[in-house]
Amino acid sequence: MLLSVLQANAVVLDIDANLKSVDEAAQRAAAAGAALLLTPELFTVGYAPLRLHAELDPASLPSIRERLADIARSHAIGLVYSLPAVSDDGGLLITATLLDPQGAVLLEYAKVHLFGADERKAFSAAQEPPAVVDFNGIQTSLLICYDVEFPESVRAVATRGAELLLVPTALSAGFDAVPQVLIRARALESQLNVAYANHSGAEEGCDFLGGSVVAGPDGSLLAAAGDGAELLFAEISTESVKAAREGVPYLRERRPELYREWENS
Amino acid sequence: MLLSVLQANAVVLDIDANLKSVDEAAQRAAAAGAALLLTPELFTVGYAPLRLHAELDPASLPSIRERLADIARSHAIGLVYSLPAVSDDGGLLITATLLDPQGAVLLEYAKVHLFGADERKAFSAAQEPPAVVDFNGIQTSLLICYDVEFPESVRAVATRGAELLLVPTALSAGFDAVPQVLIRARALESQLNVAYANHSGAEEGCDFLGGSVVAGPDGSLLAAAGDGAELLFAEISTESVKAAREGVPYLRERRPELYREWENS
Repeated sequence: MLLSVLQANAVVLDIDANLKSVDEAAQRAAAAGAALLLTPELFTVGYAPLRLHAELDPASLPSIRERLADIARSHAIGLVYSLPAVSDDGGLLITATLLDPQGAVLLEYAKVHLFGADERKAFSAAQEPPAVVDFNGIQTSLLICYDVEFPESVRAVATRGAELLLVPTALSAGFDAVPQVLIRARALESQLNVAYANHSGAEEGCDFLGGSVVAGPDGSLLAAAGDGAELLFAEISTESVKAAREGVPYLRERRPELYREWENS
Repeated sequence: MLLSVLQANAVVLDIDANLKSVDEAAQRAAAAGAALLLTPELFTVGYAPLRLHAELDPASLPSIRERLADIARSHAIGLVYSLPAVSDDGGLLITATLLDPQGAVLLEYAKVHLFGADERKAFSAAQEPPAVVDFNGIQTSLLICYDVEFPESVRAVATRGAELLLVPTALSAGFDAVPQVLIRARALESQLNVAYANHSGAEEGCDFLGGSVVAGPDGSLLAAAGDGAELLFAEISTESVKAAREGVPYLRERRPELYREWENS
């Protein structure tokens, strides 16, 4: 399956401009034969936690989601987008959604590990584990940004059967070791494909790294972006996952009962 | 604290030759001002699980340990060595031992994750968690080879307070991603120093990678060896650990209660 990853600069709270970027990327990705387009964290509204908290009307979210579904449907491509969502207790979550090429929701996830003071002021941390769905014959899951820096989150994804992990992110400049070391390690230690889509440029005074990557289940980089806007492509297979897991069976040779005992000792 | 890491080729079951290599490395390391010398997995006996199982007389182990203590004492340097040890049920374990510069045992650890069919034929897997001791004012722990490829093992070390993790290993050629990606990730995600000492050359038909590394708590490489025999040096500090943990508090922002719930959901 050909996967595409959008790295781009969003304009904070300019929904029309950001949807136009997603639409253009979806068109290019579909024309190239990609089955799925992954976009960065909170891309459609821009990554600006305090302004989103202060200025974004949650009542506007359903129509934004409908316009994103229209984009998927009109280009007949799967789409991962990230938006705020209102939680049961009235707070705001950071979520990611996987749409099928007909624009129907296949999977949703809400961010468990919030990063930094601004995110914690503007958003609530979720508690639900990541789930896994079949997308085009590939077991697929979602995490968001800081979540993937914790090996425990990716273990939760992998032990539920995921072969492809899609991660919208908003990573600042200077954190090059996250895509170059941690993402490759997550892919290698749990033997799955990991795609990581970042913002580029500056939004509200925050400089983003770019540096989006797709890592294969042997820890190699299948694709890597520079620091500007870019549409990445990578061929993803379940065969490489099976081969890696047969070669060195990390998931089977974990000793989770011991790890639990050790936590209490 | 200056740390030294021996990467070298062992001669299987030629104890005298291997002890001579350790002694020479300890002399050079001490002369350079190093407080501690880390040596590879099973270095004194050679890495050859089936031959060790068939030919090594466990009754010879106490005198080998005494000769290693003599080396530490005579050069007034801390020493990490790895040897087989007889378990309570009469099987053989793969162990690592940290000696102080007077040759006294500060810490012992037995390998929990055995790698491959030969190791599982020759050795039993241990169950005890890694422990942590103060060495020269640095909280120090031990794992062995395959153990460190599991993030869970390093979390057990880090949540017990370790600032320096010493890892004797025997890693085959072709597995470059282990030192270059996984070791750096372990250091970064748990924000501690990790030193990884490998064999070089061939022993009993097994070609070793070399490629020993020392990684700092920001995931950077403090030292890295090529594929031949080499004595590496790296300056290790607790300040860099504290700085990393204050910058992005991974250990504090883990959500272990959730991870436990997720395992049962």
